[in-house]
Amino acid sequence: MISKNQAKLLRSLHKKKYRREQGLFLVEGEKTVLELLASGWPLHQVFATPDFIQRFSADLDDLKVVPASAQELTQLGTLVSNQSALAVAIQPEPQPVSWQAGNWILALDRINDPGNLGTILRIADWYGIQQLVCSPGTAEVFNPKVITASKGSFLRVKVSYQPLDEFMQTLPEGTAVLGAYLEGENIHDLKLEKPGQGGIVVMGSEAQGIAPELEDKITQRVTLPGYGQAESLNVGVATALICDNLRRLEGG
Amino acid sequence: MISKNQAKLLRSLHKKKYRREQGLFLVEGEKTVLELLASGWPLHQVFATPDFIQRFSADLDDLKVVPASAQELTQLGTLVSNQSALAVAIQPEPQPVSWQAGNWILALDRINDPGNLGTILRIADWYGIQQLVCSPGTAEVFNPKVITASKGSFLRVKVSYQPLDEFMQTLPEGTAVLGAYLEGENIHDLKLEKPGQGGIVVMGSEAQGIAPELEDKITQRVTLPGYGQAESLNVGVATALICDNLRRLEGG
Repeated sequence: MISKNQAKLLRSLHKKKYRREQGLFLVEGEKTVLELLASGWPLHQVFATPDFIQRFSADLDDLKVVPASAQELTQLGTLVSNQSALAVAIQPEPQPVSWQAGNWILALDRINDPGNLGTILRIADWYGIQQLVCSPGTAEVFNPKVITASKGSFLRVKVSYQPLDEFMQTLPEGTAVLGAYLEGENIHDLKLEKPGQGGIVVMGSEAQGIAPELEDKITQRVTLPGYGQAESLNVGVATALICDNLRRLEGG
Repeated sequence: MISKNQAKLLRSLHKKKYRREQGLFLVEGEKTVLELLASGWPLHQVFATPDFIQRFSADLDDLKVVPASAQELTQLGTLVSNQSALAVAIQPEPQPVSWQAGNWILALDRINDPGNLGTILRIADWYGIQQLVCSPGTAEVFNPKVITASKGSFLRVKVSYQPLDEFMQTLPEGTAVLGAYLEGENIHDLKLEKPGQGGIVVMGSEAQGIAPELEDKITQRVTLPGYGQAESLNVGVATALICDNLRRLEGG
């Protein structure tokens, strides 16, 4: 049974304001909750059906899990489907992002759709990119839609928020800063000035592109070649295509 | 004013059963409705706000557009946001898909999520792929979520439904049939046996992969290389990555 206070907490975490106040966030879905448990991420509380508790007792260790019905969990979560587990996890302290030679960082300029941010987390994780820096106006990483769309990748990819021009000023002179533009160099023909040195990839929102004040920080403008009539690609898809081309260029 | 009968029709088109019975489907959102109007696609009826009718009178030609309030349109459509136009379009007669040397066709095996199918339509259109063949169990292309996610690409990419093993039997001997697998050849190292000849790319569902009965039709198994810890990529993202690599291989 979920107590009234617990139910109130769970409902409050649907909203950004309360997530921030409490420093907590929701993790939903059996598979993602299991990944969370295995990761050692700091937890506030776990709620699960008796069936889940029985099946995964080994993963639950000595955690005090609150038993609840699938109906209760579904009502208190944000996903539509039948839920067997719901975790309340603790938000980490914000950490400044820091670039090191050899690594890539994704810089997201006003990617405000939570589904897109979640997809980009998953893509970053696939391509071994461990840090994202997000402009104000980018979706909040602890939004349940981001967490769910990331399919557990939020556990591995660090996300920080900072005005991107400020972040760019922290980079060593000569760092490669690639920006995705509609009219840049065809990424199939791209040569990196310093292969193996990594750098930054800046993705702008589908509606607005990269903010003009960032333009003079971009060292190479890249474009994904199109062969048909679609006007644009989804920003998550575009991010994956750029990462794939970069990894191919590096011969990794 | 939308009449009672018109409202009933619009509501019925939220459901696959009625879309099929009536041979009609909904197109929503200002930009997509304008693209629809410009395309010459056969229409049953267009509903729009007086403001839309005034702003786009040139695009509306001599169409008899039913004026309606944004509130009515939003209530009768499937999108959450404020709608200014809603069209009821006519489903084309099903056409068998036919492969011609030099072209690529995407074959989708049980891609049941409408958002993914819409994204794949947009990607196919971006990469100049004009035909999709879908197994039973793939989302219905006239689902409003597919239409909206396709961003107008449903106007240009033909979609047909057929058991994929039947479709494969119609292909000339020696046609390249690439299949996306977790353990195939790294697509960065892929060489096409017949470059420039095109072929088929088979994408399976994220949960189930490609059906075992199709395996012996696949001539090359390809894999997208990962560099991090994410277990998988979204099927739309994976489709885009394969298309991009093929277009790069073809030097197009």
